Amino acid sequence: MAHPIIGIIMGSDSDLPVMQAAADILTRFEIPFELTVVSAHRTPLRMVEYAQTARQRGLKVIIAGAGGAAHLPGMVASVTSLPVIGVPVKSSNSIDGWDSVLSILQMPNGVPVATVALNAAKNAGILAAEIIGTSDETVASKIDQYKAQLQDEVTAKVEQLKQAGWENKFD
Amino acid sequence: MAHPIIGIIMGSDSDLPVMQAAADILTRFEIPFELTVVSAHRTPLRMVEYAQTARQRGLKVIIAGAGGAAHLPGMVASVTSLPVIGVPVKSSNSIDGWDSVLSILQMPNGVPVATVALNAAKNAGILAAEIIGTSDETVASKIDQYKAQLQDEVTAKVEQLKQAGWENKFD
Amino acid sequence: MAHPIIGIIMGSDSDLPVMQAAADILTRFEIPFELTVVSAHRTPLRMVEYAQTARQRGLKVIIAGAGGAAHLPGMVASVTSLPVIGVPVKSSNSIDGWDSVLSILQMPNGVPVATVALNAAKNAGILAAEIIGTSDETVASKIDQYKAQLQDEVTAKVEQLKQAGWENKFD
Amino acid sequence: MAHPIIGIIMGSDSDLPVMQAAADILTRFEIPFELTVVSAHRTPLRMVEYAQTARQRGLKVIIAGAGGAAHLPGMVASVTSLPVIGVPVKSSNSIDGWDSVLSILQMPNGVPVATVALNAAKNAGILAAEIIGTSDETVASKIDQYKAQLQDEVTAKVEQLKQAGWENKFD
Amino acid sequence: MAHPIIGIIMGSDSDLPVMQAAADILTRFEIPFELTVVSAHRTPLRMVEYAQTARQRGLKVIIAGAGGAAHLPGMVASVTSLPVIGVPVKSSNSIDGWDSVLSILQMPNGVPVATVALNAAKNAGILAAEIIGTSDETVASKIDQYKAQLQDEVTAKVEQLKQAGWENKFD
Amino acid sequence: MAHPIIGIIMGSDSDLPVMQAAADILTRFEIPFELTVVSAHRTPLRMVEYAQTARQRGLKVIIAGAGGAAHLPGMVASVTSLPVIGVPVKSSNSIDGWDSVLSILQMPNGVPVATVALNAAKNAGILAAEIIGTSDETVASKIDQYKAQLQDEVTAKVEQLKQAGWENKFD
Amino acid sequence: MAHPIIGIIMGSDSDLPVMQAAADILTRFEIPFELTVVSAHRTPLRMVEYAQTARQRGLKVIIAGAGGAAHLPGMVASVTSLPVIGVPVKSSNSIDGWDSVLSILQMPNGVPVATVALNAAKNAGILAAEIIGTSDETVASKIDQYKAQLQDEVTAKVEQLKQAGWENKFD
Amino acid sequence: MAHPIIGIIMGSDSDLPVMQAAADILTRFEIPFELTVVSAHRTPLRMVEYAQTARQRGLKVIIAGAGGAAHLPGMVASVTSLPVIGVPVKSSNSIDGWDSVLSILQMPNGVPVATVALNAAKNAGILAAEIIGTSDETVASKIDQYKAQLQDEVTAKVEQLKQAGWENKFD
Repeated sequence: MAHPIIGIIMGSDSDLPVMQAAADILTRFEIPFELTVVSAHRTPLRMVEYAQTARQRGLKVIIAGAGGAAHLPGMVASVTSLPVIGVPVKSSNSIDGWDSVLSILQMPNGVPVATVALNAAKNAGILAAEIIGTSDETVASKIDQYKAQLQDEVTAKVEQLKQAGWENKFD
Repeated sequence: MAHPIIGIIMGSDSDLPVMQAAADILTRFEIPFELTVVSAHRTPLRMVEYAQTARQRGLKVIIAGAGGAAHLPGMVASVTSLPVIGVPVKSSNSIDGWDSVLSILQMPNGVPVATVALNAAKNAGILAAEIIGTSDETVASKIDQYKAQLQDEVTAKVEQLKQAGWENKFD
Repeated sequence: MAHPIIGIIMGSDSDLPVMQAAADILTRFEIPFELTVVSAHRTPLRMVEYAQTARQRGLKVIIAGAGGAAHLPGMVASVTSLPVIGVPVKSSNSIDGWDSVLSILQMPNGVPVATVALNAAKNAGILAAEIIGTSDETVASKIDQYKAQLQDEVTAKVEQLKQAGWENKFD
Repeated sequence: MAHPIIGIIMGSDSDLPVMQAAADILTRFEIPFELTVVSAHRTPLRMVEYAQTARQRGLKVIIAGAGGAAHLPGMVASVTSLPVIGVPVKSSNSIDGWDSVLSILQMPNGVPVATVALNAAKNAGILAAEIIGTSDETVASKIDQYKAQLQDEVTAKVEQLKQAGWENKFD
Repeated sequence: MAHPIIGIIMGSDSDLPVMQAAADILTRFEIPFELTVVSAHRTPLRMVEYAQTARQRGLKVIIAGAGGAAHLPGMVASVTSLPVIGVPVKSSNSIDGWDSVLSILQMPNGVPVATVALNAAKNAGILAAEIIGTSDETVASKIDQYKAQLQDEVTAKVEQLKQAGWENKFD
Repeated sequence: MAHPIIGIIMGSDSDLPVMQAAADILTRFEIPFELTVVSAHRTPLRMVEYAQTARQRGLKVIIAGAGGAAHLPGMVASVTSLPVIGVPVKSSNSIDGWDSVLSILQMPNGVPVATVALNAAKNAGILAAEIIGTSDETVASKIDQYKAQLQDEVTAKVEQLKQAGWENKFD
Repeated sequence: MAHPIIGIIMGSDSDLPVMQAAADILTRFEIPFELTVVSAHRTPLRMVEYAQTARQRGLKVIIAGAGGAAHLPGMVASVTSLPVIGVPVKSSNSIDGWDSVLSILQMPNGVPVATVALNAAKNAGILAAEIIGTSDETVASKIDQYKAQLQDEVTAKVEQLKQAGWENKFD
Repeated sequence: MAHPIIGIIMGSDSDLPVMQAAADILTRFEIPFELTVVSAHRTPLRMVEYAQTARQRGLKVIIAGAGGAAHLPGMVASVTSLPVIGVPVKSSNSIDGWDSVLSILQMPNGVPVATVALNAAKNAGILAAEIIGTSDETVASKIDQYKAQLQDEVTAKVEQLKQAGWENKFD
């Protein structure tokens, strides 16, 4: 595999079922990535080191997922000047996901985190690809194809619905 | 001025007092940008055209700010494969900003918007710069300098607080 | 079937189990309708075209259901001057439905969406019938009959409860 | 003045500063309306009578505004089969408007209220006009003109911003 | 059974599983009551009549349960000057119960509803008993006995926990 | 003054501007009351004693106002079997009033608090009067007169609005 | 067992499944504790006595868990000057845990409660240990070991993920 | 001044107006403390170093205030095993304080933060004193005196209210 240019990290391996969607979509776009567990609260020094060395190790974007009082994306963003994409994870100890969303989104001036929807690791992967696509034509055209395919899928369903009739769908 | 590579758009010129912070920080980073009003709801066709032509016009990132049922960032993201940064604006008709945040953040799979904090147009600008910095060393090092300066400002305040004593600060 | 005068659209076929209640009630009122999938985010141009041609195709009301950052009802309303009824769908990626509700309800001045309760596609259908009933006596009297029937059902339950006694209801 | 076809009612005359925007826009569209105070809680019988006689008095749409535990729109909708548009008013005793919104929006099956955004009486007026426009070509074309004008205003501001430059706007 | 002095009403028979706890506790306190379905939205005139005749029929307190945009308690309170206790029911179409709570609690000046916790029909029954107890010594002392018993139950559990040890409780 | 039968208490004298509306309306209904400060958190033993002796001192209803983590109404209700009316006060340290509302409303089974709207001390007074009115005809008819007057005030405003025209109201 | 220095109390034995995590972690740290049920609302006098005698009985920290309108932690804190740790329990009658959180957290000036996350009894135990550790070196070093172990567990998972590959984790 | 045993830190000097209340109350209790600015996001390495050296520098408790996506208290708690008290600050970029509260409170298992109410720096100071008081009799008795004084202040106001009458208070 080529040298990873995207780093996918998460606060706990219990976030992996959510976060693997980011890995899946990057695999589809053939963008090399690495994936590991980095806990802001249990391994703070590893987190600092991960973020400090990210650019020199060749990473261009970091995707960080965490739940509850989710500090990983923001803390990584405070150490690196790479774009950091935050995925709020609705973990078991979360209050309906609001804590995950707000503690990732509401970053102070100077330290942005590109936040995506609750549990939206797939969109984090697509956003990372779009960022790579700003300087890589091949990736950009793969995203265009992907978007065209999304459209085709809708069109196919429209046609299917037309043929079958909606009445028959839930009989 | 060089050809713009960032597009800053907003749903209404009443968003300009919030959104100009994005322009200010991009000016500081010497990244050429354009700024205009594109309303998803009042000029939907102009919006579609803006998004469809964005990449070919040389844009690499779009920053879109809107308030209330804020559809501009998500709709632009649905038309282009450029990364779109959404700024939830706490407009006068907003319910404490929750509507602006949720209608930008909670995008469906396939169409991410990189959402920043409520009214955080400055962070949108920094995030756009970080994205440019993934393929432009000059910009990347400017952001590093900016981050170092943020740190210096804190250090200066720490020193100042030490000299003056916190007791004297609010006399 | 007569030419459709109501258009029922939804962002995804996964919304169909919720949205079919609108179709059911319109069927009951014998108001001809069409039903299809139109995605604001995956088929934006199809959405624009759908909305632009709606009136000339004979539609009088559009019912649009969507979840999460639900842009379909508002975007359709921005393109047509037909009344648009929005159904917030509590989809799987929704934050308890708040995102669906706020991103449909909180439309800016100039572009109203007639929003009904979360998942209330049946009420969307009734509201569409009431709108038709403003110029169609037959439909108006069907709604009056429907309302009378709702009342009769309550009265029947009151009587039933009286006969059986509430104590026996859950033995 | 022609016989009113829209009824604008509100729970208290303290809602008038918000609700008059509905009257203003209907005046602009030259749609005759009546406006009065009908309190669900202080004049419940007057409310019932108002709703019961609305259709026979020639009304086609009722716009009802109320705040806090806002029962007026829903109760009127329970008595009449005319379409009822609800305007949640952020009154002084409201909890950030959430109570007004939820007690108007979340109506049970069978009794829809077409809810618009918090304080959005103007949109309630436009929606009422759109409903009238489903059977009145003159009104329909006035709304089309209005929408075109909204678009022109944005275009004018775009041009203005281009001429003056955004930098000069806030000097 | 003696003539009822408490009226228990609910918007739908689907609320009965929640509301019967009020009936159970009143039965325990030997306070005669009636229980029926009165829908604010589907039988508005029956509701008005129920409330108007309540005092002359011998009722002293009305307990009203409803969910979603819950108008029953407040509307009954607008017609009668008897104390009305509102029970917010977390019905299936409710947004986590917030709509039920706010549309019952946030009544305007002049028309109070004594609101209890979400689904707390038992507490509604106790509160009704306490109100009866303000002029009926027998009922008052029954409530005192009930409260003493609550205390005894806790004391018994304390003792039980002491004997068994908490460690053994979940083995 | 006659012996007080209503006790109005509040957690802090800073709640007095809100709570005096309860005293004003009871004065109007000529129901004798006492008013004092009882802090659950700063004078817990005084609170217990106040609640324990309330019935024997002749009180029939207690109105308790508090803000933030508002424990006064619930704690008083835990000690006495008199009906306790809770007034959530939007104090300066409150999170938009949500804390005040939820910590008064959401009492466990066995210990109800009759909660009124945020800051609705006037309604607390009316509710207390309604409770007294369940066994005191004079008070009951005073409330009926009060409700009739509320209705008259609305009717007067309706007439006034008719005469002046709404257009002239805000010139 | 040594004399208990931590008191773990809860409003109901139904809170025990949540609260036992505090007992488990204190057992691990070999800190002697007592555990019992103390209900603010059903045994208010027992609660006052428990809190009044806590210090003289040798307790140094009290951990109090409760749900809904959770008054136990705050009321105990009002009677004792020991540090009180509050655990908001998401009980069955809770509105998504918000009531539990706010009624414990939002204490007025003068009476703090050290609040931990929803259902986070384990963290309450660790916090109690940290407090003991401010004057007990043995406990302090046990916590350091515990934190090191947390870190080791993450490191082990990192290694495991590296070996197995994330792709294989969910096959 | 004696060697500090409490560290008061905050994310920005704009938090000082809120946080100085902690310093004031510790001054009153004659507990030596230090106060400085430590930004999790702008000076992450300084934060790590501050937390790592805290215990050896003689600190026993850390009070950390921050707003928005408030990471400072939780990150400090991840590095030290001293008890950390978090003060959610309602900063200008906060969404009504919810973000500050949730991102401090909802810490994962293993890393507690003792959270106090929004802006409640005074309570943070008292809680720190209570913690010191678990091993320092002098401090413990100072807190007892402070609590007695709070009680006396209420008693004085009660008396004052009695003398003057509540009616005269707001003339």
